Amino acid sequence: MSITVVGSIAFDSIETPHGKVERVLGGSSSYFAIAASNFADVNLVGIVGDDFDQRHLELFKERGIDISGIEHSSGKTFAWSGAYEAGSLDSAITREVHINVLGEYSPKLAEKHASAEYIFLANGHPALQKSIRGQCTKAKFVMLDTMNLWIETARDDLMNVLKDVDCLVLNEGEALLLTEHHNLVAAGYELLELGLEYVLLKKGQHGSMLFTKNDFFALPSYPLRVVKDPTGAGDSFGGAFLGQLARSKDLSFESMKLAVMYATVTASFTVEEFGVDNIRDLSFEIIESRATKYRKMVTIP
Amino acid sequence: MSITVVGSIAFDSIETPHGKVERVLGGSSSYFAIAASNFADVNLVGIVGDDFDQRHLELFKERGIDISGIEHSSGKTFAWSGAYEAGSLDSAITREVHINVLGEYSPKLAEKHASAEYIFLANGHPALQKSIRGQCTKAKFVMLDTMNLWIETARDDLMNVLKDVDCLVLNEGEALLLTEHHNLVAAGYELLELGLEYVLLKKGQHGSMLFTKNDFFALPSYPLRVVKDPTGAGDSFGGAFLGQLARSKDLSFESMKLAVMYATVTASFTVEEFGVDNIRDLSFEIIESRATKYRKMVTIP
Repeated sequence: MSITVVGSIAFDSIETPHGKVERVLGGSSSYFAIAASNFADVNLVGIVGDDFDQRHLELFKERGIDISGIEHSSGKTFAWSGAYEAGSLDSAITREVHINVLGEYSPKLAEKHASAEYIFLANGHPALQKSIRGQCTKAKFVMLDTMNLWIETARDDLMNVLKDVDCLVLNEGEALLLTEHHNLVAAGYELLELGLEYVLLKKGQHGSMLFTKNDFFALPSYPLRVVKDPTGAGDSFGGAFLGQLARSKDLSFESMKLAVMYATVTASFTVEEFGVDNIRDLSFEIIESRATKYRKMVTIP
Repeated sequence: MSITVVGSIAFDSIETPHGKVERVLGGSSSYFAIAASNFADVNLVGIVGDDFDQRHLELFKERGIDISGIEHSSGKTFAWSGAYEAGSLDSAITREVHINVLGEYSPKLAEKHASAEYIFLANGHPALQKSIRGQCTKAKFVMLDTMNLWIETARDDLMNVLKDVDCLVLNEGEALLLTEHHNLVAAGYELLELGLEYVLLKKGQHGSMLFTKNDFFALPSYPLRVVKDPTGAGDSFGGAFLGQLARSKDLSFESMKLAVMYATVTASFTVEEFGVDNIRDLSFEIIESRATKYRKMVTIP
């Protein structure tokens, strides 16, 4: 079963209390695709400029990711610069955003990408997400991520696309903003009322929660003494979650619980180093090895 | 196996976004004792003034709590007044504290209380905690709770008593303050270096973590759409944790995992109503029933 992800591919410049990096590979769909590729076949659909680095494309290819859906445009690749402060690693302070080639991007998916059964609409304008959703006529399970910017400036478009999505994945702040709740559990259940079957809320160091009308599942994060760079943790989480669902071909709630576990463990690798440094060589075996340790840490006798 | 808890018995006045109450039964040892009494025999040692309400003593007695260690003094009972704001229910804003009869309190424990095998030194001045610890010569497992005030004003005394304690229980903010860390996992491991065998960190709505040198365990909180009053959640958590250890007579790490589970579930009852309203009639059967539901919510297939 293959996954198609559509979202940003970027150059990120990141500063955290543990150091800084300039113009490394970033973007929501990059993290998602690398994480998901440990579990399933992934089609990465996006756009890059003529300044993009060939070795990043090689990395995707080495991981078996189909990059035939990456459009090459004259102009510059989307670039983001941000920082995290000690004690508040769960939210980045954006310093600069250069939309560049992403500005006018509105992809027409190739048949082999549009026909994937598992779709991830990575963070982007909800009207664009809606257009992509419409093209994926064979989809069995569609996940969508968004951010504060779209919740605040394109709420109607967001509500519109959510009706055609199975699972919304948000972080804590986004969920509270979207629902205007103070209680994250209440927010999770209210989000289901938007026409969603599943709501997956990420709490950074505090773990995650999965809501359906009749079921609930929660796990703590994998314990890390040092988080070097939280960038991409959420997209890695989403990638491993959808990757495991595609791998298992099982959309039962029990299967989703296992997917949350793999998502938790995969995201823990992402944040241990800057950018994609710690996940570029990840394998299912390495993830499984940490998952075995993790199970012991969270299993009630 | 019996538990002796020494700590405050109080009148609490509490305001939260869900309402307010005046001069209800409160105090760290009240919550602890009520929670622990679902699991084991509890001796409650503390002091009250001549304004204390007989019906609160009756409540303790009805729950099988030994109150022969409660000293009755002329003067007024310790009184606390505080508020919680929407969105930050994990920390109270103290409005008033009237130390009253607690000011000069320095108990000499009766033999039957001093000889308990499980001891909880509830939040109080660390020098007083040290004196009580010294009296408990038969102790198998001693837990200590503290607060920001003592970390900031009596750090040396605190460090001194911690050497004679098995398990320190702290909330997130206290752990970060005591260690000057930003990362709570790093803080947990560093606290072990103070001579403790176990460190139990509470994160309110985000669950808890138990650290030893060689083991780690974490659980999320029980999901609640409404938290009416967080007061006493931490002491109820501690009470159920130590109560379950005493009930099982098993200090293995596997036993502690189960105790964290019961602590999590018991604390979830406390915060559903103001003060002790929702735990005054609690039973092991009611806790076990919610625990069965909770296990399904956090168990990886």
